[in-house]
Amino acid sequence: MTHCPSLCVSVCMYVSVSAQSAVLDSVLSTFRSICGEDNVSLGEAVREQHGKDESVHRCCPPDVVVFPHCVEEVSALAKVCHHHRFPIIPFGTGTGLEGGVGAVKGGVCFSLRNMDRVLDLHQEDFDVTVEPGVTRKALNAYLRDTGLWFPVDPGADASLCGMAATSASGTNAVRYGTMRENVINLEVVLADGTIIHTAGNGRRPRKTSAGYNLTNLFVGSEGTLGIITKTTLRLYGIPEAMVSAVCSFPSIQDAVDSTVQILQAGVPIARIEFLDDVMIDACNRFSGLSYPVTPTLFLEFHGSEQSLEEQVNTTEDITHSNRGSDFQWARDAETRNQLWKARHDAWYAALALRPGCKAYATDVCVPLSRLPQIIVETKEDLIENRLTGPIAGHVGDGNFHCLMVVDPNNAEELHRVHLFTDRLARRALAMDGTCTGEHGVGLGKRALLCEEMGPMAIQVMQGLKDALDPYNVMNPGKILQPREL
Amino acid sequence: MTHCPSLCVSVCMYVSVSAQSAVLDSVLSTFRSICGEDNVSLGEAVREQHGKDESVHRCCPPDVVVFPHCVEEVSALAKVCHHHRFPIIPFGTGTGLEGGVGAVKGGVCFSLRNMDRVLDLHQEDFDVTVEPGVTRKALNAYLRDTGLWFPVDPGADASLCGMAATSASGTNAVRYGTMRENVINLEVVLADGTIIHTAGNGRRPRKTSAGYNLTNLFVGSEGTLGIITKTTLRLYGIPEAMVSAVCSFPSIQDAVDSTVQILQAGVPIARIEFLDDVMIDACNRFSGLSYPVTPTLFLEFHGSEQSLEEQVNTTEDITHSNRGSDFQWARDAETRNQLWKARHDAWYAALALRPGCKAYATDVCVPLSRLPQIIVETKEDLIENRLTGPIAGHVGDGNFHCLMVVDPNNAEELHRVHLFTDRLARRALAMDGTCTGEHGVGLGKRALLCEEMGPMAIQVMQGLKDALDPYNVMNPGKILQPREL
Repeated sequence: MTHCPSLCVSVCMYVSVSAQSAVLDSVLSTFRSICGEDNVSLGEAVREQHGKDESVHRCCPPDVVVFPHCVEEVSALAKVCHHHRFPIIPFGTGTGLEGGVGAVKGGVCFSLRNMDRVLDLHQEDFDVTVEPGVTRKALNAYLRDTGLWFPVDPGADASLCGMAATSASGTNAVRYGTMRENVINLEVVLADGTIIHTAGNGRRPRKTSAGYNLTNLFVGSEGTLGIITKTTLRLYGIPEAMVSAVCSFPSIQDAVDSTVQILQAGVPIARIEFLDDVMIDACNRFSGLSYPVTPTLFLEFHGSEQSLEEQVNTTEDITHSNRGSDFQWARDAETRNQLWKARHDAWYAALALRPGCKAYATDVCVPLSRLPQIIVETKEDLIENRLTGPIAGHVGDGNFHCLMVVDPNNAEELHRVHLFTDRLARRALAMDGTCTGEHGVGLGKRALLCEEMGPMAIQVMQGLKDALDPYNVMNPGKILQPREL
Repeated sequence: MTHCPSLCVSVCMYVSVSAQSAVLDSVLSTFRSICGEDNVSLGEAVREQHGKDESVHRCCPPDVVVFPHCVEEVSALAKVCHHHRFPIIPFGTGTGLEGGVGAVKGGVCFSLRNMDRVLDLHQEDFDVTVEPGVTRKALNAYLRDTGLWFPVDPGADASLCGMAATSASGTNAVRYGTMRENVINLEVVLADGTIIHTAGNGRRPRKTSAGYNLTNLFVGSEGTLGIITKTTLRLYGIPEAMVSAVCSFPSIQDAVDSTVQILQAGVPIARIEFLDDVMIDACNRFSGLSYPVTPTLFLEFHGSEQSLEEQVNTTEDITHSNRGSDFQWARDAETRNQLWKARHDAWYAALALRPGCKAYATDVCVPLSRLPQIIVETKEDLIENRLTGPIAGHVGDGNFHCLMVVDPNNAEELHRVHLFTDRLARRALAMDGTCTGEHGVGLGKRALLCEEMGPMAIQVMQGLKDALDPYNVMNPGKILQPREL
């Protein structure tokens, strides 16, 4: 369990413990009758496991955890909660990064791991429907022999419905889009137990202009508008060939200029990841590599053999003209996996810089042209404030993270990190960007969201929340700040 | 002015003409003081011009048309309307196809043609912001020397903000997406005059997970939630080379199988348009062409010279294996434009089949694998019911239209067309599809939307509408059916 006092904006807000436990007593037997004795847990370990994600936000365990098996059970449970105004917190794999699953007002965690079926694969139509217990890797394993795959890859082996709920993206988004572009339909249980299908029951057209876009209202709503119990996803043909490469640059500007020019040239690059000198140094040490310790791009190309050749040639011309090194290649699957393992292990590589510390990933996104300036200023800020924060980013989207490595027992350092992350977010806002490109708002960025959107747009968001969840039962305290505070 | 009684679901619902004109009297002078005497029109011709789009829905002229110059004027006008519960109907170019601009409850049409500036082009960031008077072609003319373009192409030279409001798409969507994927931010004036920016003022990150996705709530809201006064759009590099081709098939199944296999092979095809035998025959006659009168694909490839060669080779292999003819080529810009002119003239070619008649475009979208069946059944239905309805479609998205050619003075035929279009939509719904892939709901598809979404999802849409526009001032009677009926 992580305890980082000054980083935790959240406080478990048990206004009245006795009132809450009276409610708990009265709902428990109904919960048990709905999903069975064994699927309602009051155990401390289970509750604590469901009260935190992979961020440094304080663990806020729910009062009880339920494990429903089907949408009817979810709906029946929600009706009980709605009647008693008992908070509901949906839980997929707990791999979020902004404290989205903390039960800040107590209540019941709906762990959806028992709903783990892959439903309705339509190979010819490039779509599939999954329940919330199905993770990204499980789906791709299921698809292995079909020639299809689901490319959105946030790193963690997250639940696909959870990825829809948090509008996840990751390394492949520059080519294949984020969850926003890849969810076709959702089954959602609303706060009062009503079951809806955001694009109509069972529908899966590749495009639609039928009424308000409910699908993309629920994508990214972080469990505050309803519980996603099914998602229909767009699939892609597995590319005939893939090749990865690494390229070093004398400056951040050179690496970013290359990125802009690669996109401008229409190269359909599948991944283009930036690592700063500190990050590449950490990766070298952690993964036994020997890349030059300078700003670096990790690239991946997908396509036919012939198109790869052309993509790579165009890209190499561009990187050379921006003083990039020769490419280091990873052509076969094993070498390619090794290379990307190094990128995916960036988190652990960062942690290894300071053994015993905790990692905390920031997340901002700016227009491409502003990347060099914001990264340079951020690095100066880190040095000035004696902070360890290697930088890695999905640079094709203008999205990057500082992997802050913090001593959780050093309150003063935690305070400095907190001030730093706020400055970073405000720097992104000042450059026409957003305080979160892919991690979401959760608990950590509610105040920044207000700065980003302005009071009138926040009021619109609050109006939507009130319309769908008038009693604030659904994951209360997330995205929008409680009005009573 | 078009009058097709039995096709027109809409009836101009002046509940009380005297009450309405009393309101009109009291708002007129304020309107004039806000945007100037010359920009408030009561003229019959102007009102009629603003009371209809390109569909066959009956003209429903507004009581008055205003021509504001800036968002502040739009906001001030909206405040007055809100106070008096006076309906507001936003108007771009009037090129919609489902009666979206008809003033079914009277009120004021906001014609936004005076707000026609291209703002804030950021070439390096591939984005631009435009006011609602800027059309698709005007933007692309503006971008001519930048190497960038905006690809979404619904055929008509529509206003880009109007395209956002109706979630437009068209021939390029299979490669570049619809408006849903290409709008980064919107400035919107709400019913009460409040100005919001759906992604925060001036923000333009390529991706975001900051709170509820307001942008995609307003995209496709057809003027019922607010007036779009600015849109920030994603731009693309103009491809180095383009080539178009035409390929004939012995059957619809062969043409659709080719489409599925082309997509499955990962060919980044830019356009893939299906024309049935009746359509190609009409195009031949109208444009002096001599394509075989069989199911036909019009294709377009974008990329580098080298990648085009590969795309074309792969595609030809696939079409040959599905009994397709050799390709007829259009390599230079002129021949290519000629070819696409034939496709874009399909509407007029259809009309020319029966001089003196009117055209009415249906619009459904189904999963790709269901296309052959729905098209075959629909052609049988047309023949059985003695109707002229050549079929053209954005087949890569599963989206197609019947261009119904109707004698507007033949009530019995109009009735048959009406019954046919309902059957077509229900056929799409029965195949997991939608009653509208890109034309929207407007007046014509409100009942079908209810069938498509189910009562609970419609209730959610109504809840969102009520939250944002409690007095039903914004384009009343569109998308959602009036509750008083």
